[in-house]
Amino acid sequence: MKATRYIFVKRPYGLPDRDVFSTEEVNLNDLKKDELLLKPVYISVDPYMRGRMNDTKSYAASWVPGQPVSGGVVALVTESMNSNIKPGDYVTGQLEWATYCIANSKNVIKVDVNRFPPGYYLGILGMPGLTAYFGITDICKPVNGDTVVVSGAAGAVGLVAGQAARIMGARVIGIAGSDEKCRMLETEYGFEKAVNYKTSKNIRKEIAKICPQGVNAYFDNVGGEITDAVAASLAPHSRIALCGQISQYNSTRMPAGSFIMSIILTRSVLLKGFIVNDYASRFPEGREKLSEWLEKGQLKYTETIIEGFGRLPEAFLGLFSGLNKGKMLVKTE
Amino acid sequence: MKATRYIFVKRPYGLPDRDVFSTEEVNLNDLKKDELLLKPVYISVDPYMRGRMNDTKSYAASWVPGQPVSGGVVALVTESMNSNIKPGDYVTGQLEWATYCIANSKNVIKVDVNRFPPGYYLGILGMPGLTAYFGITDICKPVNGDTVVVSGAAGAVGLVAGQAARIMGARVIGIAGSDEKCRMLETEYGFEKAVNYKTSKNIRKEIAKICPQGVNAYFDNVGGEITDAVAASLAPHSRIALCGQISQYNSTRMPAGSFIMSIILTRSVLLKGFIVNDYASRFPEGREKLSEWLEKGQLKYTETIIEGFGRLPEAFLGLFSGLNKGKMLVKTE
Repeated sequence: MKATRYIFVKRPYGLPDRDVFSTEEVNLNDLKKDELLLKPVYISVDPYMRGRMNDTKSYAASWVPGQPVSGGVVALVTESMNSNIKPGDYVTGQLEWATYCIANSKNVIKVDVNRFPPGYYLGILGMPGLTAYFGITDICKPVNGDTVVVSGAAGAVGLVAGQAARIMGARVIGIAGSDEKCRMLETEYGFEKAVNYKTSKNIRKEIAKICPQGVNAYFDNVGGEITDAVAASLAPHSRIALCGQISQYNSTRMPAGSFIMSIILTRSVLLKGFIVNDYASRFPEGREKLSEWLEKGQLKYTETIIEGFGRLPEAFLGLFSGLNKGKMLVKTE
Repeated sequence: MKATRYIFVKRPYGLPDRDVFSTEEVNLNDLKKDELLLKPVYISVDPYMRGRMNDTKSYAASWVPGQPVSGGVVALVTESMNSNIKPGDYVTGQLEWATYCIANSKNVIKVDVNRFPPGYYLGILGMPGLTAYFGITDICKPVNGDTVVVSGAAGAVGLVAGQAARIMGARVIGIAGSDEKCRMLETEYGFEKAVNYKTSKNIRKEIAKICPQGVNAYFDNVGGEITDAVAASLAPHSRIALCGQISQYNSTRMPAGSFIMSIILTRSVLLKGFIVNDYASRFPEGREKLSEWLEKGQLKYTETIIEGFGRLPEAFLGLFSGLNKGKMLVKTE
């Protein structure tokens, strides 16, 4: 059987373009014991993948030029050589960006698409949702009345982080990149206020005005100048969950020193870098809590779904221009 | 009675010079109930005082131009209107840089100059020693076999921080600003290795070579490029006690973004800013432990004592050129 899959062609310098990806046709072998023939239905594109394009040691293995691209996928099982997984079931795992692929059943987990839409398992109940959950509950630890600022607030992680902080009793301020996203955060997701960093004349002053008592916790997805602007309003003993630095992922220069360090020092700030796998042993707790909040209607969710397997590069690159609200997914057909 | 005291003249821009200080003669009033007439014997100069020269909110109140300079002092009691403190006793407290001054007895504490030399109460048993103790025991938390790097290692705080980490079982690497200081750290203070950042051709590579398993904890007194160099070798889940940023205290430009942020993110680093007063309720524990280590000979100590009340400005400015080994003190005569 034939399938089409994406190949990572070459390491980009700075902002990647479409040429970092190509496609190829492959022949799939017959299934061996415990293998599954899978048809990817939803494919996740995530900012952290920019890091996998670099030849530097990080928490996720580098993609190798000439090799297939892989990431989070929800797939339909079309054939199975494992007795616990049947054709028609849906599974999720780290799989190739492909029209069809073969995976060992021990590398995927079954998901219940009747309980939640399939894309949720790549978003609010997958890596981004768990990232938000642990960053807020274990690092930001908001208490009633705290002011929590979330950057990248309209993205897959930020949207859940802000709501989780609100559920825990915080007053939540979002930072996002369009008026439409800001309106969405304020009217639909319970953010008290959202700031459009692209149109703000002085984001530092704006944050200071909205947070006159200071910022008690900052969930950072973006880094750079936005983080410096929030830093100026950090309250003594505040906490920063350093989750992402999307503003820097395509940077080609290496800044030295930082405004934020003086703030961290003089205000006894706790800054904690983390990746979701630090909490691997607590994933069941996280998934259960997020599911409960979703089912009670306390937590809302949105996805940006791009249709068409051929549009995977476009979707990935769109992450860096803020194309998405909530989780960005590609629906293969 | 007449006394001479220092006045803070004007806020400096960048590196201060002697002109930020002047002296004046004052007439001291007669003592009221509970007041003491004190003769400062040891006066502490500390890097954090550079921050007090700025008109910005920080953890220590700003010095006001035209007003007397104050800081940590050990003084001899020459007259007393309090029954618990007698002439001949020694006390410590936040006092003016003066030849004589009057203080209320409730603002000072008696010190035992027979148990330890008077300067120790401004150094290893005072603010710098407690800073080192809590930064290491509460933030860096080294376990047996960990590699701990200390910047500003030959200074008042660094010298104690490195030894405390060693006492807790760590392998300790120091960074200091002269070959003589480095030799001192290695031969007298139990640092396994010390790096002279002023002569190192590539401090990042040198640290990487000395710490092939990575740096598990970093006690940072200096910030800037040295911190970026250490950052490159941070181990996953490492801890940074952000205690000082002396390389930046005279900086007039505002750097944005930082190399270290990407490291903190991808290696799940804990970075904690702190000031010693965060641990105020645990000072007795800290002092007791430091005293015990000193008396058992596990902890060694050194001071740089400048003699002469008139040399206070020179001593303070010398902090920024690395004049001191260990705690810098001025002996008034």
